[in-house]
Amino acid sequence: MLTNFHREDDNLNKKERKSEIDRLRARLAGQQQTILEAKIPVVVLVEGWDCAGKGNLINELICEMDPRFYSVAVFRHTPEREDRFPFLRKFFQVLPEDGKLLFVDTGWMEDTVGKLLRREIPNAEYKRRVESCQIFERQLRDNGYVVIKLFMHISQEEQRRRMTTLWENRDTSWRVSEEDFWQQQQYPAFLKAYDQFMEDTNKVFPWHVLDAQGKNKYVLEALRTVSRTVDKALENGRYEGKPTDKSFPLLGGPSLKDADLNAVIDVAEYKKELKRLQGKLRELHNQIYRKRIPVVLCYEGWDAAGKGGNIRRIAYPLDPRGFDVIPVASPTPGEKARHFLWRFWTKLPKSGHVTIFDRTWYGRVMVERIEGFCSENDWKRAYGEINEFEKELTDYGTVVLKFWINIDPQTQLERFTARQNTPEKQWKITDEDWRNREKWPLYEEAVEEMLRKTSTTYAPWYIIDSVDKRYARIQTLKIVTDVLEKAVNDCIIRGIESEWTPTQEKQD
Amino acid sequence: MLTNFHREDDNLNKKERKSEIDRLRARLAGQQQTILEAKIPVVVLVEGWDCAGKGNLINELICEMDPRFYSVAVFRHTPEREDRFPFLRKFFQVLPEDGKLLFVDTGWMEDTVGKLLRREIPNAEYKRRVESCQIFERQLRDNGYVVIKLFMHISQEEQRRRMTTLWENRDTSWRVSEEDFWQQQQYPAFLKAYDQFMEDTNKVFPWHVLDAQGKNKYVLEALRTVSRTVDKALENGRYEGKPTDKSFPLLGGPSLKDADLNAVIDVAEYKKELKRLQGKLRELHNQIYRKRIPVVLCYEGWDAAGKGGNIRRIAYPLDPRGFDVIPVASPTPGEKARHFLWRFWTKLPKSGHVTIFDRTWYGRVMVERIEGFCSENDWKRAYGEINEFEKELTDYGTVVLKFWINIDPQTQLERFTARQNTPEKQWKITDEDWRNREKWPLYEEAVEEMLRKTSTTYAPWYIIDSVDKRYARIQTLKIVTDVLEKAVNDCIIRGIESEWTPTQEKQD
Repeated sequence: MLTNFHREDDNLNKKERKSEIDRLRARLAGQQQTILEAKIPVVVLVEGWDCAGKGNLINELICEMDPRFYSVAVFRHTPEREDRFPFLRKFFQVLPEDGKLLFVDTGWMEDTVGKLLRREIPNAEYKRRVESCQIFERQLRDNGYVVIKLFMHISQEEQRRRMTTLWENRDTSWRVSEEDFWQQQQYPAFLKAYDQFMEDTNKVFPWHVLDAQGKNKYVLEALRTVSRTVDKALENGRYEGKPTDKSFPLLGGPSLKDADLNAVIDVAEYKKELKRLQGKLRELHNQIYRKRIPVVLCYEGWDAAGKGGNIRRIAYPLDPRGFDVIPVASPTPGEKARHFLWRFWTKLPKSGHVTIFDRTWYGRVMVERIEGFCSENDWKRAYGEINEFEKELTDYGTVVLKFWINIDPQTQLERFTARQNTPEKQWKITDEDWRNREKWPLYEEAVEEMLRKTSTTYAPWYIIDSVDKRYARIQTLKIVTDVLEKAVNDCIIRGIESEWTPTQEKQD
Repeated sequence: MLTNFHREDDNLNKKERKSEIDRLRARLAGQQQTILEAKIPVVVLVEGWDCAGKGNLINELICEMDPRFYSVAVFRHTPEREDRFPFLRKFFQVLPEDGKLLFVDTGWMEDTVGKLLRREIPNAEYKRRVESCQIFERQLRDNGYVVIKLFMHISQEEQRRRMTTLWENRDTSWRVSEEDFWQQQQYPAFLKAYDQFMEDTNKVFPWHVLDAQGKNKYVLEALRTVSRTVDKALENGRYEGKPTDKSFPLLGGPSLKDADLNAVIDVAEYKKELKRLQGKLRELHNQIYRKRIPVVLCYEGWDAAGKGGNIRRIAYPLDPRGFDVIPVASPTPGEKARHFLWRFWTKLPKSGHVTIFDRTWYGRVMVERIEGFCSENDWKRAYGEINEFEKELTDYGTVVLKFWINIDPQTQLERFTARQNTPEKQWKITDEDWRNREKWPLYEEAVEEMLRKTSTTYAPWYIIDSVDKRYARIQTLKIVTDVLEKAVNDCIIRGIESEWTPTQEKQD
């Protein structure tokens, strides 16, 4: 795309070009309203050479737009703490709401190609990221997003000219960094790598290469591209992806049928084990903190199965500086207006921390499926999207464990009734709980399908029998401590352990 | 409070203490629901000596609580980027919603006393911060918050013992930092300074010193204190502060009566000036970026006065990597359930950046006052609270400029009608605009009072006559460039310029 790039004249004189720019800018401002009504979220990704004028282009695009409906995200210099999350997280975090625009100044392309050429990631990680970018864009498209990808192209000579000018002026020299000079020096290697990346990611949303030598020309090109793509998207209406047939390393279970609802533990044994396992978990928390292993614990289960008490027994030995419990209820309007995984991406633990989700993204294939809060395509597609999400986490080195806290309908009835009859517990039981209870068979079907389709080698499901809540707590603690112990021993954090030594600093 | 501290026995044996702790924990879990219903937000601040066990105490307090209704914030090690905001910002940011609890592990006390003794802030800044803490707590109280302040006290010997134990164990030695040893060595100085701080901040919410030598004893003391304070708060009901009679350095104007609604500029002159001033602003943005001066521009004004177009002319020359436009509409539920300044504290520019607020916190004394969205006490108190807020910003070095974009009722009518009759502009005009228009005299009164009570020497109001929108834009650009030029020349950023040299790094 770049190696065979030919500069073409747009056959406009300066004045014509200027007036065409003014016309398209006004048009784009008007399109903002149409996008908003059509509820189509639009991401404009601006990548390109150092000193090509990415910031300037964004400015020229937004200058007539209403700031209520767009935002600008800049990733040129990734803040240090972003390295403590999977790399896609920061891009998920800034996703716009339905109907709004986001301009990204240097995004997932530079975070992949640039990092490779600047030797910040190894080749294997580069390849993984290319795939992640493909998945990211497909997920965006399938969930209704339009992504417009612009690459600002200048020649090696032009780049050198610009850098020299900036560098020689006392007031602007700070704007050119060693990284920029590195790119200038390695221009041919970057050219080849950019080209390869664009070829690898051209399918879902195509790249548009802008000739960024002369100022107004690329502004016009960009305006035309954005305006045209938006028109087309409005014409086609919001896209809804079908499920893919991509395969995952599935374990093929477990199934609710395998549950042992008679499992019990005696109280003395419980107390002893609780103390022992909590002590062990406390130690392990120290170690995952030092080895910077992020941990995600997912809790799902029947109402009144005992999730809350179970979570508290896990959380108790943890250092509050290093864990969070995220209760998940129905999404807020801002959450509902974004990719369904957005609210989880933005709450991930940083490396070395633990996040416990009290209900999770699996709501998509349970309550949202059963209550019709999303379309059939949406929940059917979600199995794959969730597997991809969890793969992204575990590839980064996250430990992901998923618990289904399990009881039978009779036990639930007894607990509901007890709650109803205990004044201090009445707030725990609502009409909705009773309504959900009537849908037990529907949920059972959804749970079985979920267990079958999302129990992967890298993020397995565990059924925790919780008719005896104490038994359930001990089971969960055992699994958590066993898996963490293994993770600490393996210590496989990708791209982090190499830079980091535990004695270096007191961590946060 | 510490120098005369006497350890007292609670006259309980181990078993009695344990059972009392269990009882109070369950009680606290129950109180969570009552607080929620009473919509009283509660902040539990845990301060104390290094190695006193603050994290552990918080864990013991929360272990029976429902994680949906509390959160924990840890500030022991302030992330570097927090230094690029006024120090109170991070504490505002984590404020809980009405009815929820927040536990703070090391907060504004250590950020004041600790920083002084560790020589990270000078004495003058320490004094300023003490006052800021007083204001912060008063504002919290007046807006219905309950703050419970616990200090965990151990002797110098006990601290030494604990540090040595941690240090000598290979697995825990990383937990003791040089900072901790520094405190151990300087224990008497810290003791005196902690004491002084507690005395200085004991009025609005009192301090509770916990004897943290033996483990279960302080847990019991803390549970008792929290439980008792919550009971009392529930009994008294949500507090609503009266306006204070604190005085501020007011300019005593401007007034709408001074406006010159006939002011115009001719088009050729406008174009020339616009170009010149935007060029100047572009240069200045570079410089405030390098000198790390944060800038806050506030836009208020009549509907259809031309705020949007004015903002765009200011934003156009700015580098999009260094500015944000924040459109302010009615608060979301999460915003409404917090201190009314919360949503502005959390959107402040970091040092070197510009934030343009399209409508602002002055909504409190205009629309909220007129529509009755808050109580009379609330909006009357807000003048002082806003002056304090802006003082906090400017003390940090922020440039704060406030523009009232001004037109007369006749001009508004013409613009409303034009919008109504132009298809592409119809979305800009709503029934609400017409209703607000009917309340012009009420707004006029509110605006005059606002200008009189909040135009301070450090954050002045400017009336921008905007019957001729071009004239208004030039006026605003002139003021912004003049003030920024002066700020760059003075370069008065407190506590930042000393550490920082522009050649050191490429900034974000």
